[in-house]
Formats: sequence, structure tokens, C-alpha cells
Amino acid sequence: MKVDVLTLFPEMIQGAIDASMMKRAREQGLVDIRLVNFREFSTDRHRTVDDYPFGGGAGMVLKPDPVFAAVDALRQGEQSKPRIVLLTPQGERFSQEKAYEFAHESWMILICGHYEGYDERIREHLATDEISIGDYVLTSGELAAMVVMDAVVRLIPGVLGNQESAKSDSFADGLLEFPQYTRPREFRGWSVPEILVSGNHLEIAKWRRWQSLYRTWQRRPDLLAKAHLTDADIELIKDWTRDADLASRL
Amino acid sequence: MKVDVLTLFPEMIQGAIDASMMKRAREQGLVDIRLVNFREFSTDRHRTVDDYPFGGGAGMVLKPDPVFAAVDALRQGEQSKPRIVLLTPQGERFSQEKAYEFAHESWMILICGHYEGYDERIREHLATDEISIGDYVLTSGELAAMVVMDAVVRLIPGVLGNQESAKSDSFADGLLEFPQYTRPREFRGWSVPEILVSGNHLEIAKWRRWQSLYRTWQRRPDLLAKAHLTDADIELIKDWTRDADLASRL
Repeated sequence: MKVDVLTLFPEMIQGAIDASMMKRAREQGLVDIRLVNFREFSTDRHRTVDDYPFGGGAGMVLKPDPVFAAVDALRQGEQSKPRIVLLTPQGERFSQEKAYEFAHESWMILICGHYEGYDERIREHLATDEISIGDYVLTSGELAAMVVMDAVVRLIPGVLGNQESAKSDSFADGLLEFPQYTRPREFRGWSVPEILVSGNHLEIAKWRRWQSLYRTWQRRPDLLAKAHLTDADIELIKDWTRDADLASRL
Repeated sequence: MKVDVLTLFPEMIQGAIDASMMKRAREQGLVDIRLVNFREFSTDRHRTVDDYPFGGGAGMVLKPDPVFAAVDALRQGEQSKPRIVLLTPQGERFSQEKAYEFAHESWMILICGHYEGYDERIREHLATDEISIGDYVLTSGELAAMVVMDAVVRLIPGVLGNQESAKSDSFADGLLEFPQYTRPREFRGWSVPEILVSGNHLEIAKWRRWQSLYRTWQRRPDLLAKAHLTDADIELIKDWTRDADLASRL
């Protein structure tokens, strides 16, 4: 997969792509990341990339010309069509489903704003997707682009080792993870639950499923609607919900 | 504000805190960021920070000892109590409200996992908060920590200039932003809407409100429930909803 990031602050991103999973993916040739400073595509003397908004108001707006010119230059001589993703608070909320969708592409261009809004013509006539990583205000599209890249690149076949992939699969059932414990068995007076050291794998699996379900029901009940639940799971949830209803009426 | 980030990959974060808004905030002494590699607090010969999970299963689990030891060292001799935030997919969803809440703290410790889960005792006996930046899987708590830091630090008084603050306030009404345009007035055949160059500020304000409302209604209707709406706004939304209902029945 080819990923081009259009950014005014490539140095913000460099460290993250030179480390860990992203570094390995690049070294193995599984992803080719280019950081493109679109200021270099500004044609005026001062290399301006933003300007005041028409109609007045505070804040600056990213001009269309340098962004279009940078994308044009990247597409020069290329046959395939890139997915052109604008990182923006008004975008569709990023999700694991979206990460899987992007992971099937051969080429993504991520466009990062910085403080400013985008000229609407970038949105309408250049971007194929508008993505928001969450309902909070960031100074920088760079962080959003890094998040999207990480979530997508780790899904490319071969990027993660077997053990890591297996781990990620545990999210695939749509529930929050069960509690995990490692050594030491006793730490500052807090012990690992007996069942996890019992050696009874059937009981451990049941305990973990119960914990996973219960944690999801307590913390993120919205996830249950899309989770893969068995009949037994559904019975458990009904019991908890009935008990909670009863308790609230006492 | 003091922010300590416990991470195994400080080099992933360094670039982002050396640039732009975060750099200025640090130079002005408005935030003091320390990156702490908690591997240095591992006491065994191989500086191990993770181990196999009790009860079996794929993946590794972050051991409690180095993380507790790193936090203990940071708290040594300190009077104030830090907010200790675990970045984790099972956490509460990060939001702008949460960013405001954290911005009032004088000290935050952010704990980043990397691939692995956390030993449950970190969750239960050390963290004061568990935060998720969204429903997607990242290899790295580092990116989540960077997102939280950015969203929080920009809210510290004095960090953003006036113009930038005003801009951020436009999110405060809970609606998506209206379309923005800047020069050139005509670009590749696409013109700026006439109204924005009309000079009629009352009409421009009405147009922008309408656009903002309509975009929110179309893309993120879930935001309308919490938005600050006038009676006129509500009438507009009722009209659109009725028209959409009618259209869907044709």
C-alpha cells in the first residue's frame, strides 16, 4: 500500500513512522509512506497556504491551489486512483470497519489541515472521503492522520506477527476485552483470580466470556447491538438488565 | 500544567511535542511535558515489561511492577495528586467535555500500552481514568496519548492566540462548521458563493447558520440533541425532517 500524507508539519509525523510496527511494515516493503509538505506547491512569493475567509470571521482557511497542485503532482503518471481522505471534524466518524475498508486500497492520500478550515472546494472537488477520529477539537490533522495510518497499516496482511494478529482478532466479536493478568501472581497484596491459575481451560474460557460481556454491558452497552452474541450471552444480559431495573426501583 | 507520559516509545511522541502549538505552549512554560520510558523501572536483568497472560491465550500483558514503580518515582516528594489516565480501548470515549475537564487539572500522567493489554491491577489500583479515543484498534497507546495531550493543552488559557481561540469557540455550539472559502474567488471554474462576497453581514450570518445546521442534520444528527438551538433552528429542522419523510414515501 502507498500512503501519501499532505502536511505542513512532516516532522510531527516522522517519529511515529520511524518506530515500532510502522517501521517494520516500511522495512518489509508492505507500506510506502511519503510525507509531502504542500507548502512547496504554493506559487506565491511568500509560500502562502492559507488566507482570510470570504464573508469575514475569525480563523484562516486553507487555500485550494497548493493542495490541488500537490495531489496533481502525486497523480502525475499514475494509473491507479487514490482514496483522498480529508481529516476533518465534520467527517464521518472513523471506525474499525472503515479501517478494514481502507486496508483494501492500494493507495491513500491523507490531507491534514492545521488549525484552519479547508476551502470548501477541496472538500467538494478533491476529497473522496472526510474522516473524523472523534468528537474533540485537535489543533492538527497530523495526529488524526497518524491514527488512521496506524489503524489501517496494521491490518495489511503480513504486517503483524501471528501472535499479535490473534490478539487483534479478539476485538472482532465486538466486545470489550476481559481482564488480563500476568506475573507476579501476587503484587502489593493484590492476587491474580484463582480461576486463571486453576488450569481448567473450559472454566477460564467461561469466566473470560462472562467478564467480557459484563464489562461491555456496564461500560459500552451501545456495542452490544452490533456484537456477536450467543443465546447464553443474551440470557445473561437479560438477567443483569432485570436485576438493574429491580435495583433502581428499590 | 504538568504532563508525564509513560511510554516504551518516547521517540514516537517527541516530534509531535517539538512542533507547532505544543512547542509554543512548552516554550511559554504553560505546559511541562516529560516522556518517561517505564522500561527503566523494570528490575529484572532483561528489563522485561511484559509477560504471558495467566490462564493462557495469545498476546502479551504489561506487567504491573514497572508501571507502578515509574508512577511512584514521579510522585516522590510531590504534594499534589495526579490524574492517572490509562489509554485503552475499554476506556470511556474521549470527548471535548473530557478535554475541558482534564484542562482544569494541574498534573496528568498518561500511561501508554503498546500492543499488549494491561495487567488488571494497573487498571484497578493505579489509574484514575480509562480513556479510549475511538472505536478502532491502534497498535499504540502513544498515538492516543498524543491526541489527548493536544486536545487538552490547547484549552489551557494563553496557549492559543485570540484568533485561534475564537475559532475553537465556533465548535462550542455543538454544530458542524459551515463551508468556508478563501481566495482565489474563482478556482478551476468553481466560484465562491455570491452571498459571501455580498458584504451583507446579516445575510451571511443567516446563510452560515443554515449551512451549519443542515450539514449537522445530514451528517451527524446525533449532535443535534446536545446542540444549542434557537426556535428558528428547530423550525428549520422540522421542515427538513418532514420533507425527508415525504420524499421517502414517494
